[in-house]
Amino acid sequence: MSALISLFDYADAARGKLPKMVYDYYAGGAMDEITLRDNRAAYERLKLHYHVLAGVKDVNLSTQILGQTVSMPVLVAPTAFHKLAHADGELASLRATGAAKTAFILSSLSNTSLEDAGRAATGPLWFQLYIYKDRGVTEALVRRAEAAGARAIVLTVDAVVWGTREADARNNFRLPEGLFVENLSAAGKQTFPPGPGSGLKAYVTQHFDSGIGWKDLDWLCSITKLPVVVKGVCRADDARRCAEHGAKAVIISNHGGRQLDTSPATLDVLAAAVEALQQRAEV
Amino acid sequence: MSALISLFDYADAARGKLPKMVYDYYAGGAMDEITLRDNRAAYERLKLHYHVLAGVKDVNLSTQILGQTVSMPVLVAPTAFHKLAHADGELASLRATGAAKTAFILSSLSNTSLEDAGRAATGPLWFQLYIYKDRGVTEALVRRAEAAGARAIVLTVDAVVWGTREADARNNFRLPEGLFVENLSAAGKQTFPPGPGSGLKAYVTQHFDSGIGWKDLDWLCSITKLPVVVKGVCRADDARRCAEHGAKAVIISNHGGRQLDTSPATLDVLAAAVEALQQRAEV
Amino acid sequence: MSALISLFDYADAARGKLPKMVYDYYAGGAMDEITLRDNRAAYERLKLHYHVLAGVKDVNLSTQILGQTVSMPVLVAPTAFHKLAHADGELASLRATGAAKTAFILSSLSNTSLEDAGRAATGPLWFQLYIYKDRGVTEALVRRAEAAGARAIVLTVDAVVWGTREADARNNFRLPEGLFVENLSAAGKQTFPPGPGSGLKAYVTQHFDSGIGWKDLDWLCSITKLPVVVKGVCRADDARRCAEHGAKAVIISNHGGRQLDTSPATLDVLAAAVEALQQRAEV
Amino acid sequence: MSALISLFDYADAARGKLPKMVYDYYAGGAMDEITLRDNRAAYERLKLHYHVLAGVKDVNLSTQILGQTVSMPVLVAPTAFHKLAHADGELASLRATGAAKTAFILSSLSNTSLEDAGRAATGPLWFQLYIYKDRGVTEALVRRAEAAGARAIVLTVDAVVWGTREADARNNFRLPEGLFVENLSAAGKQTFPPGPGSGLKAYVTQHFDSGIGWKDLDWLCSITKLPVVVKGVCRADDARRCAEHGAKAVIISNHGGRQLDTSPATLDVLAAAVEALQQRAEV
Repeated sequence: MSALISLFDYADAARGKLPKMVYDYYAGGAMDEITLRDNRAAYERLKLHYHVLAGVKDVNLSTQILGQTVSMPVLVAPTAFHKLAHADGELASLRATGAAKTAFILSSLSNTSLEDAGRAATGPLWFQLYIYKDRGVTEALVRRAEAAGARAIVLTVDAVVWGTREADARNNFRLPEGLFVENLSAAGKQTFPPGPGSGLKAYVTQHFDSGIGWKDLDWLCSITKLPVVVKGVCRADDARRCAEHGAKAVIISNHGGRQLDTSPATLDVLAAAVEALQQRAEV
Repeated sequence: MSALISLFDYADAARGKLPKMVYDYYAGGAMDEITLRDNRAAYERLKLHYHVLAGVKDVNLSTQILGQTVSMPVLVAPTAFHKLAHADGELASLRATGAAKTAFILSSLSNTSLEDAGRAATGPLWFQLYIYKDRGVTEALVRRAEAAGARAIVLTVDAVVWGTREADARNNFRLPEGLFVENLSAAGKQTFPPGPGSGLKAYVTQHFDSGIGWKDLDWLCSITKLPVVVKGVCRADDARRCAEHGAKAVIISNHGGRQLDTSPATLDVLAAAVEALQQRAEV
Repeated sequence: MSALISLFDYADAARGKLPKMVYDYYAGGAMDEITLRDNRAAYERLKLHYHVLAGVKDVNLSTQILGQTVSMPVLVAPTAFHKLAHADGELASLRATGAAKTAFILSSLSNTSLEDAGRAATGPLWFQLYIYKDRGVTEALVRRAEAAGARAIVLTVDAVVWGTREADARNNFRLPEGLFVENLSAAGKQTFPPGPGSGLKAYVTQHFDSGIGWKDLDWLCSITKLPVVVKGVCRADDARRCAEHGAKAVIISNHGGRQLDTSPATLDVLAAAVEALQQRAEV
Repeated sequence: MSALISLFDYADAARGKLPKMVYDYYAGGAMDEITLRDNRAAYERLKLHYHVLAGVKDVNLSTQILGQTVSMPVLVAPTAFHKLAHADGELASLRATGAAKTAFILSSLSNTSLEDAGRAATGPLWFQLYIYKDRGVTEALVRRAEAAGARAIVLTVDAVVWGTREADARNNFRLPEGLFVENLSAAGKQTFPPGPGSGLKAYVTQHFDSGIGWKDLDWLCSITKLPVVVKGVCRADDARRCAEHGAKAVIISNHGGRQLDTSPATLDVLAAAVEALQQRAEV
């Protein structure tokens, strides 16, 4: 195996090792993948106009996010189903973020339970939440996150209609034998509905509430003392409104180009959102 | 056959099933196909700046077009010769639009007669018209459309000089044995002139009036009570002028990039045309 | 052989029939061919915002250029060495432009003499001139053009240092046995200097005056009553200055991308030049 | 071997003759090579709006740089390790620049000592300097440059953290047997640290001072009467500040795209820097 030097090397190695269904799930975007490509291209468009003779011997990237110290301004975003890649799953990711001294955001759709993640965490642990049609299920997750020591709730708002990820549809994406949506398995091991196409899309359509609005953000902020972070905002006005409705921070994101294709690149809307939020919430 | 998930899948499947002459006719644009490609690219350029937390559970896309209720703001544009693709031809398309509860625009160049289409339609049926050198033929088509229950006349104005679709020229495009221009076959089955090159271009050159002007729009509006829709407008000033001459609606279109190459992408001129037309006609 | 429908078909056919040295000479541009490609791309960038319902039955493209009637606003630009392509050479081109009722501009570097061209011309004949180090040779060409019935002198000003056309250098471009620079053969058949690389570039370096300036345009206008057209201008200020120095018309051109690479596309500078020249000279 | 006409021909020939490790070292840029490609693309974007009839017979490109006459406004930038390409190394390059009557900038990382270069130089010789953690080593290099007849010190400021040139990392870039960093070999032949990855990056990390700031430029200007040129500036404000701190000239450069990837193309920031420096220092 050749040396793993750039992120592309890791992606290539993953393509070689993972089953096609799993690699496609991690790598794919929605529909024609216009936004997926544009997210990347936006970084190529952004030029770094650096200073010279600035004395960079003792560099310290550590900062405070929601009052929590992290070693660098980079968190690990919530991603689903880590056990598809490795049997250690989210626990391996938690070891890595603990060693890197930054925060890990556990997905609702993890293969590791909140309780196991809480026990394994050595750094800040946050919990990512979808709002389920059943508000009792939703609130129970918040309570378990609190009990497990999570230090923020990250509410994803851009997935009420699940993106059409064509590779998942072609691969009839399913969780392999023995893997489950652990956090939702209170009443027995939970997995995807049967049928052709993406099982995950079918699961989301069945369980997530596509009708959520600003009142649901109010509700979430009212039931927990944990700071609420809204993830999946792409407009400055929406970002400001999140702050007005109680969010302590906003994650500007188009879900990695995996939800609504032809949405703008995250990087291209970031500056306007930061401007709109000034002094109201963190980004 | 792999799953048909995106429109590209359908195009690929069509390429596999249809004779080359037919696939090229449906898929090709004029000359160097610059506009054909730009029509598509314009959709990639347009970014959707969506709102979140907007409550999208009960979505209703139905609307009124020319006072007619359709289930979504999408009509089926007039396209010629559906029997090239399938023996059911336009009747199959009518079944689909009926089921989808939107309008079907029957092309003058259909392989199904106005009368048969009128009998089969279960939703709004509109009729697309070219102005023939013989105004008697033209008016007769309007009368038959009225009698068949069409609820609008769509006058195509961007085809007075037929686009040079190079694939059709190379394939010596002809209607196969047994297919005809049904609506023009009053005095016997009508088909294309002989000779090399595109038979359709030769037919159009022989029959259509390349000299039509604003007075012809006045004339058409004067002879029918049906609303007249002008199709093939690419400029804001022309759109406004259509409304001044009696059109009830304008279809902004460059004929799918099949007429004058290097015309602007439809999507790029749409906003200006809408602006120009405000409160005068529908778009 | 497949049908010749677009200009690309002709280029492909030429590539198949001509020796590589000849095809490369006709098709190539200077250096990295950035301008060559940009000349083409500029036409793709330019969108035609056409009017509809404009009545295009009786279209007449004929116009007056320098007081001479041509059937369309398109002349045949001067190009060298037509006998490389066909034994009839410039005489075949003259038959074509005569039939099309437009003007033919004979290159100084033709394989056909001014006198033979003058006898064969059935439409307007113009003569393209370089200024030779030997002004006697230059003036003699003007006199022969006048005598042969040429109706304008086209002075090329963008070729004082010959473009590095890499394909010509690699092919050691030479005139084949039996072909000559006919117009310069007064004192015996004239051909290119020996040596590796492009023989044409060597010829130009040997004979053309790289030091020509505005006074040379004054001089040329002073020695002939024929209208002088300056070809190879790419700036609005230069175009205006040509008119001030006696030119009756200016041809905006970067020599087809064959001279200074990275010069702007002709189409991109055209509007500014037309603006600058208004009412002083034709473009 | 085909004719060497363009710079691309030389690059292709080099790729054929050099070991992969050497070719990659010369040709590669940092990380994803976005800046490397953009440096080239910026030249394609820049259009030359040339004048005609300007009289270009007697062209003289010679100019003064730091009071030194050169035949053209082009110097040979400092590049490391010329003996990787040819046994004559920097001495061959000095012969070429001497013949071309322009200046040669000897890299600190040369395979030829300052003293040997000084003896061989027939035109202006400048010396490129990095600031080492050991200021005694740094000052000794300045003294040797003065003694060898160098006429300027070129301080490189954009290499305090060495660019991640992925090809070098993959090739485990090392100096072949018998080649050394000659100028730093006072106490024995100096070469790279052992280990995987780029030996040059390890060497730089070990020896260069990443903490240099404006006071170090002050210091360098204070210890030598030679003019100090700052190389590696990409911002107008930094360029002006260099002049304020004693630099006699600034070289606008992003290190050929070999240091911080996604820095802007050199050509794109040049005009602003020239503007900022007006009348304070040369560019």
